[in-house]
Amino acid sequence: METRNNLALLTDLYELTMAQSYFQNNRMEAATFSLFIRSYPQNRSYFVSAGLEDVLNYLENFNFDQESIGYLKSTRLFDGAFLEFLRELRFTGDVWAIPEGRLFFKDEPIVEISAPIIEAQIVETFVINQINLQSLIASKAARCTHAAAGRTVVDFSLRRTQGIDAGIKVARSSFIAGFSGTSNVLAGKKYGIPIVGTMAHSFVSSFEDETDAFRSFVASFPDNSILLIDTYDTLAGARKAVEVAREMAGRNQRLRGVRIDSGDLASLAFQVRHILDESGFRDVKIIASGGLDEYDLAEFSEAGVPYDSYGVGTKMGVSADAPWFDNAYKLVEYDGRPVLKLSTGKVSWPGKKQVYRIKDGRGFLARDVIALRDETIPGGEPLLTKVVEKGRTVGQHASLQELRDRFHAEFKRLEDQVKAIRNPATYPVEISANLKHLRRHVEQQLTSEK
Amino acid sequence: METRNNLALLTDLYELTMAQSYFQNNRMEAATFSLFIRSYPQNRSYFVSAGLEDVLNYLENFNFDQESIGYLKSTRLFDGAFLEFLRELRFTGDVWAIPEGRLFFKDEPIVEISAPIIEAQIVETFVINQINLQSLIASKAARCTHAAAGRTVVDFSLRRTQGIDAGIKVARSSFIAGFSGTSNVLAGKKYGIPIVGTMAHSFVSSFEDETDAFRSFVASFPDNSILLIDTYDTLAGARKAVEVAREMAGRNQRLRGVRIDSGDLASLAFQVRHILDESGFRDVKIIASGGLDEYDLAEFSEAGVPYDSYGVGTKMGVSADAPWFDNAYKLVEYDGRPVLKLSTGKVSWPGKKQVYRIKDGRGFLARDVIALRDETIPGGEPLLTKVVEKGRTVGQHASLQELRDRFHAEFKRLEDQVKAIRNPATYPVEISANLKHLRRHVEQQLTSEK
Repeated sequence: METRNNLALLTDLYELTMAQSYFQNNRMEAATFSLFIRSYPQNRSYFVSAGLEDVLNYLENFNFDQESIGYLKSTRLFDGAFLEFLRELRFTGDVWAIPEGRLFFKDEPIVEISAPIIEAQIVETFVINQINLQSLIASKAARCTHAAAGRTVVDFSLRRTQGIDAGIKVARSSFIAGFSGTSNVLAGKKYGIPIVGTMAHSFVSSFEDETDAFRSFVASFPDNSILLIDTYDTLAGARKAVEVAREMAGRNQRLRGVRIDSGDLASLAFQVRHILDESGFRDVKIIASGGLDEYDLAEFSEAGVPYDSYGVGTKMGVSADAPWFDNAYKLVEYDGRPVLKLSTGKVSWPGKKQVYRIKDGRGFLARDVIALRDETIPGGEPLLTKVVEKGRTVGQHASLQELRDRFHAEFKRLEDQVKAIRNPATYPVEISANLKHLRRHVEQQLTSEK
Repeated sequence: METRNNLALLTDLYELTMAQSYFQNNRMEAATFSLFIRSYPQNRSYFVSAGLEDVLNYLENFNFDQESIGYLKSTRLFDGAFLEFLRELRFTGDVWAIPEGRLFFKDEPIVEISAPIIEAQIVETFVINQINLQSLIASKAARCTHAAAGRTVVDFSLRRTQGIDAGIKVARSSFIAGFSGTSNVLAGKKYGIPIVGTMAHSFVSSFEDETDAFRSFVASFPDNSILLIDTYDTLAGARKAVEVAREMAGRNQRLRGVRIDSGDLASLAFQVRHILDESGFRDVKIIASGGLDEYDLAEFSEAGVPYDSYGVGTKMGVSADAPWFDNAYKLVEYDGRPVLKLSTGKVSWPGKKQVYRIKDGRGFLARDVIALRDETIPGGEPLLTKVVEKGRTVGQHASLQELRDRFHAEFKRLEDQVKAIRNPATYPVEISANLKHLRRHVEQQLTSEK
């Protein structure tokens, strides 16, 4: 793991070679870069903004320490004057962004960075990396929250997240998008997220007798035990859990729940619920885990499978059906001149922008309009706010709970068709007349020059 | 990012609740856990071992610092005696593992950890996390190396890896599996991996004229310029690159290459090669990038598309078609007793194990045998070596270059059918008669007890 000071080096080499060339050619003017997602992955029609807090911390602490400069020198790619310049470089620009926890859509700028071009360029890699990961996971987790239809969902993904940073950020992003807790203890400490979890199969199989394993565990956690009942035979395991629950009842204790992690999860839930209910343990919860994702959860909700809670792991933690976003960080303005790229299949919109959200009479999201930064769209709420001014973060970071509340408040006002787990409807995003006009204008200029 | 001391908390809560229950029930005997992959993802028939060095560093430094203990206390889940025990806890066990850079197959133990059960249990989450990520990426990268058929391949994935740790570990793992360099500057510094990269579209579009952009860049990097030629029109871009290459030739400089990042990459390569060749620039290389993976590389190799080098990004960096492995860390022995789990669809092999690799007369890999640790298979090379003894790493870590050489040496002796990019042949992995016998025995015991 690296300390924060070293993170300036967490960039693509070309950011630094371009920086040297800008420096040597004395191109130091202000540039604006816009980060947006170009297309929806399969079965997606909305995104959830997350990752901004890490970006702002990175920008505030951006600098190349002595060791980093020494390494760059050793590569023999950079000259002394440029390295001296890098040593003094800090991020001095402005950042506008859609706040964390809010919904956004294809083509909408999530983050726009305006700074001397070298600064805005070098930070590209880190900014994309964190916004991509955290918005990816928040968007996947929101699908799980929606599919669970009111049942609680918790993050069990740490063992298979792609590395340590992902493990921590997945806990954070999924909590923003409605999850109730995480198994990740370090994330619990770092963010104050409730931590959850009880026992694994190995605990049960380390005992010669399954009931003894259950008894030992509830002796340690009389108020907070969820017994894993599928190590050998799930229904037999459920009956042993009932036996232990009866012993607990005799001591005025209450078994909190049982967990099923394998087999036909839907059919087992009905059978286990029956075993618990007929023994008078209607209040013992049933938790499902084991390769679950939002597609499973939606099926269970549809069929009324009697789970109270879901532990969702790997498939959420790596966003398995869409493990990255097709995002881009595009130069849209340089030295006051709107800029455009014409590469095949990769279209961008020039200029500094704002996104306006328009609601219908019921307070539901009706449509968004992507406009120029200095336009006003009547009746529209501007989504991008200024979060960094001259290198300094504006205002306080919201708490994680506030981000979660913000997400919930907006998510419940997004139409169900747009939230559908499969083949969702497309949410309308329009381009303002002024922005269209600017694009046509820049395009004509470029084409006539070629 | 967290410092190394805090990593003990990077675990699932249930590891710690189980630990308290083991502690309170005085279950401190030695356990052996075995980490293996249960199934092949689509189009996979082999894996490349990676991630062990990080696991060994973690185990050597494993401890709960004061702040971690304070957090655990604040959760009110743990009692004082157990927290005192945790404070003194270090990893004191033995580890056997398949060395990094070597090939392995389904069901073969990659890592086996023998330690007092609490130690072996708490480290589970971190061990799976790092071996999963790094072996996943090394295996994906090996497919790219193979598909490139001798052309160089470099890692461009940092912006879309799932977080910071993944970005660094992807550079490491892909280098082990034959990549030649990475765009990730911090990984270059940390591991001594060659760093690569030149310019982005934003560099070109920040200039009003594309040729001026090229001229400015080669002025800064006269020995090492690769011009990105697809910002507006790739063929026009190629002609401008020729113009700049001519100017360079007049100064006794040489343009190193051009890069194409969008459009019909196969057809553009032929046209750009023609433009360069007919102008006398046969030695100017062409590099492809832009959403490439091993499936594209295999097609280009097949069709003789004249690329010299590939920049492979996102799809390798998140292992897009298989973003996780179906691996498990199973208790296989407790207190000298072989252990088994019978859950539906999840089968494990009891006892401490060894894997033997048998070669054919040409020195090619013929078959592996999974056996008991104390068995010997005649003619077989044992793959698992003891890497930690009583908590201390045995011997020195190999250099990254040595791991890469080790990978190359073995990979070229794996049959092409097993390495096929689509529908590969299955490599034969047998179970020794003794291991089969042990499993049957344990199974019968478990079934008769139920």
